[in-house]
Amino acid sequence: MLSNNQIKLINQLKQKKFRQQHNLFVAEGIKTVNEFLRSEFTVKFLFATDDYTNIYNVENLQIVSQAELKKISNYKSPNQIVSIFEIPEYEEIKDYGLTLALDDINDPGNLGTIIRLCDWFGVDQLVCSKSTVDCYNSKTVQASMGSLSRLPVIYTDINLFLKNDTRSIYGAFLEGENVYRSKLKSNAILVMGNEANGISQSIEKFISHKITIPHFSKDQQAESLNVAMATAILLSVFKQLK
Amino acid sequence: MLSNNQIKLINQLKQKKFRQQHNLFVAEGIKTVNEFLRSEFTVKFLFATDDYTNIYNVENLQIVSQAELKKISNYKSPNQIVSIFEIPEYEEIKDYGLTLALDDINDPGNLGTIIRLCDWFGVDQLVCSKSTVDCYNSKTVQASMGSLSRLPVIYTDINLFLKNDTRSIYGAFLEGENVYRSKLKSNAILVMGNEANGISQSIEKFISHKITIPHFSKDQQAESLNVAMATAILLSVFKQLK
Repeated sequence: MLSNNQIKLINQLKQKKFRQQHNLFVAEGIKTVNEFLRSEFTVKFLFATDDYTNIYNVENLQIVSQAELKKISNYKSPNQIVSIFEIPEYEEIKDYGLTLALDDINDPGNLGTIIRLCDWFGVDQLVCSKSTVDCYNSKTVQASMGSLSRLPVIYTDINLFLKNDTRSIYGAFLEGENVYRSKLKSNAILVMGNEANGISQSIEKFISHKITIPHFSKDQQAESLNVAMATAILLSVFKQLK
Repeated sequence: MLSNNQIKLINQLKQKKFRQQHNLFVAEGIKTVNEFLRSEFTVKFLFATDDYTNIYNVENLQIVSQAELKKISNYKSPNQIVSIFEIPEYEEIKDYGLTLALDDINDPGNLGTIIRLCDWFGVDQLVCSKSTVDCYNSKTVQASMGSLSRLPVIYTDINLFLKNDTRSIYGAFLEGENVYRSKLKSNAILVMGNEANGISQSIEKFISHKITIPHFSKDQQAESLNVAMATAILLSVFKQLK
C-alpha cells in the first residue's frame, strides 16, 4: 500500500526543482527500470504490481495495485513498475575522446533521442548547457530507452567548458563545411544548438570547425533537419573515422 | 462562416476510410499549407482567420473566426489556417535512382520524419507497403513539415514491387554487413522494416544485401536505433557515395 507521503514525493518529482531538492528521479516500465537496476544507479523505491524480486534481486520492492500505480505513473496505462532512483554525481569532464555538447536543447524527447544516439555511438560523455532541458524529466527518461543509465550527462557552464578544452571543436551550422568532405578528428567536441535558434552567438566563437550536412533536395526547399536527426547523421560520420 | 457540412467533412477526414472515399486530406498551419500551395497539389478549401489571399493567391479562401477554426483543427491552438487538399495520384514507380521502401511502419510521427529525411536526401520516391500508416493522416502531415508536398509517396504491394525491380535491394537488419564497409550502389532500393518486428519474412527473401549500422557502445547493451534515426544514418551513408 502506497503512503500519502510516497504519492506526494513521486508527484513532486515531476518538477525539476523537487528533483534537484531531493536528488531523485522517476523511471517507469520494466525494460527501463531493469536497465537502471543493472547500472550503477542507486534505487530508492520500487513500486510494482507483481513480485519481481526474483528478477530484480532488490530488497526495497513494494507491491501495489494497478489503481495505486496509476496514481504515481506519468502514463494512462502504466507498465507494471514505477521506480525512484538517486541522481548520480558525475566526476569532472574528460578532455579526450568524442564529447557531444548541447547548447540549449529544449525538447525532452529530442534530448532522450540524443542520449540514445550517444549510447549507440559510444560517446563518452554528454555535456549540456545549464539551460538545456533536464535529462531526468520523465519524457527524456522514457525517450532515452534506458540509455541514460549508461551515459554520463553533465550540466555545466558550456562557455567555460569550451573555452578551456584544447580539443578541436566542431559545431553544426546551416552553413558550414560539407561534413562528408571535412577532415574530422576522433578526439573532438561536437556542439549541437537549440532547435529554433541553432548555436548561440556566445558559443560560436569557440567553434573551430563549422560543419553542415548538405542537402540533396531537388528544389532547394527541404526543411532543415531536426536536431536529433542531425545528431544521428553527424555522430555516424564521426564514427566512420575508425 | 463554416457550414455544418464543412465541419462534418473535415472531421471525417481524420479517418483514413473517409480520406480515401473523398480523396482529400487536411493540412494545417501557415508554413505547411504554404508549401502545399506552392506544390502541384490541388487545394479544395482554405479556412483562415485572416485574409491571406494576397499571400496565397487562391480564390477559395474562406475567412473564419478563431472559434470556428478550433472546431475543425486537430490542435488546441490552431495556427491560423486549416486547408483541404486533394490526394494526388502518382504515376508508376520509377526503377532507377534511390528508392526508399517501408515495410509496415506503424507510427505516424516516424513516417513524417522519414518523409522529411527523404526530402532532405533527395530520395526520388517513397514506396510503402499497404499496411504502412497512411501518410495523409494529420500527425504525419504535421511531422513531415511540408516535405510531403515534394515527395511522391506510393502505397503498393511491396512484395510484388521488390520482386519485379532489378536494382540492388538493401535491407536494414540488426545483423548484417557493416554499412560503413559495404559497397553501396546509388541506383538502389533501401528497405526499412516495422518498428517492433523489423523487415518481415516474406520481404526478406528479396533483399540482396543485408546491412546494419554497427554500434560503438562499450558494454554492448545499447538499444536498437529507432527506425527514423536508422533511416537518417543509412540515407546519409548512401548519399556520401556521390
